Amino acid sequence: MPTSLSTPDSAYVHGYSPREAHRLGDQADTLVTLLHAGTAYPAGSRVLEAGCGVGAQTVHLAHSSPGARITAVDLSEESLTQARDRVAAQAPAADVTWLRADLRQLPYPDGHFDHLFACFVLEHLRDPARALTELRRVLRPGGTLTAIEGDHGSALFHPDSRRAHQVIAHQVHLQSAAGGNALLGRSLHPLLTAADFRDVAVQPRTVYADSSRPALVDGFTRRTFIAMIESVRTEALRTGLTTAADWDRGLIDLRRTAEPGGTFHYTFFKATAIRP
Amino acid sequence: MPTSLSTPDSAYVHGYSPREAHRLGDQADTLVTLLHAGTAYPAGSRVLEAGCGVGAQTVHLAHSSPGARITAVDLSEESLTQARDRVAAQAPAADVTWLRADLRQLPYPDGHFDHLFACFVLEHLRDPARALTELRRVLRPGGTLTAIEGDHGSALFHPDSRRAHQVIAHQVHLQSAAGGNALLGRSLHPLLTAADFRDVAVQPRTVYADSSRPALVDGFTRRTFIAMIESVRTEALRTGLTTAADWDRGLIDLRRTAEPGGTFHYTFFKATAIRP
Repeated sequence: MPTSLSTPDSAYVHGYSPREAHRLGDQADTLVTLLHAGTAYPAGSRVLEAGCGVGAQTVHLAHSSPGARITAVDLSEESLTQARDRVAAQAPAADVTWLRADLRQLPYPDGHFDHLFACFVLEHLRDPARALTELRRVLRPGGTLTAIEGDHGSALFHPDSRRAHQVIAHQVHLQSAAGGNALLGRSLHPLLTAADFRDVAVQPRTVYADSSRPALVDGFTRRTFIAMIESVRTEALRTGLTTAADWDRGLIDLRRTAEPGGTFHYTFFKATAIRP
Repeated sequence: MPTSLSTPDSAYVHGYSPREAHRLGDQADTLVTLLHAGTAYPAGSRVLEAGCGVGAQTVHLAHSSPGARITAVDLSEESLTQARDRVAAQAPAADVTWLRADLRQLPYPDGHFDHLFACFVLEHLRDPARALTELRRVLRPGGTLTAIEGDHGSALFHPDSRRAHQVIAHQVHLQSAAGGNALLGRSLHPLLTAADFRDVAVQPRTVYADSSRPALVDGFTRRTFIAMIESVRTEALRTGLTTAADWDRGLIDLRRTAEPGGTFHYTFFKATAIRP
């Protein structure tokens, strides 16, 4: 799942439109319990949110960790502005320092932070290992890293449809062409291990939506996953990956999974690790 | 995931060898906590286990529900013999009645049972809706059905491999050719709803194994999932789905997911429902 992080080595495949910002807000609000459960930092601790985007997760970090001193970093000034407004409106008591910076070169001394949090960020980086090396540098020994990523390979649904899988594959292709990896979740464990983090523990956090959960069907299947796929339509057509007719047929099938009788399954991977 | 249920309308794709019986035992022991959590029946209640196979789940049912009066049904006399031996050895206090019968025609009056339990059974039936109609008949109004199924579409792993996905696709094809459906998990909700069960609630139960969980890598990735795929090698070659060389290359890639640095993800779907 994308956020608005973009670095020079990776064009952000979903763009920065108001509609996109709205989608990211929806996404976080629907998934917050699933993704944030278990993440809380002590008051006074220094927490770096790497790639805060439009602040969708920052709000929840602030709510879960009152008193934590959060530094939220993103490369996009525009996203930071939106994030600041969002946090001011939704978590006015939060202690957040905003910084425009590249994750590969952070203006902090070694070991400056107690904790790192990165949600839907590594998937957009051409070289996530390099970013992890820099993130590790600014984390104190014994400090924790929490990383959350999706994996589009986990998308399965009823009714099944080759065309629907094809439009998802187009999104995966475009994200890959932009230097990212929409299938990153499955490789979080080896990635963090190779970056010299220790006690790497990855949990699957699976979303499953069917007719018995209409709010989740609407909030996740329709307004998060399908909206995310829809957001790359123009790019998929522009780059000749598909035709408008084929794309639209795939989307029709994908939308059927959010109709009565449909089901949708997706797994996020949440990793925690320690800097030795 | 298969058990040993076989009905005349569906040849059991995995066969009945001792090795297969051993595999099914491994499978249940590894997955028991994940799959059986939340399932316990009151002492004295009448529970029908539909398609007990070699008794892998019967043992756990008995442990979780001491005092329940379990009736375990299977079509295979050979499987029932093994199931009886297994329960005698592992749950000697269990109250189990064994019966050879076809799920489509059960020798019980309407509403005879308080609860139904069916694990890895519907996936092997050519017409699961028909079996569900008969199962519903023997369940009393207000009684519960619990059904657990896998879905091979949820299998994702690192390192990713087209060849590994291909051998899984061969297993899916063979199970389908035998009248079953290895992708059934995702459609449990509409299936039970269409069979006139009410309050249908489906939960994903996701297994994720990486190097930090060596017992799960061995017990699930290697000895359950990969062993299940391996068990159809002969049939895949006999029916010309693949060549020995391609099959073996796919298995090599699949086994790499159980080596250090590999990861493996699979989701089971657990449904509960009530007969109105």
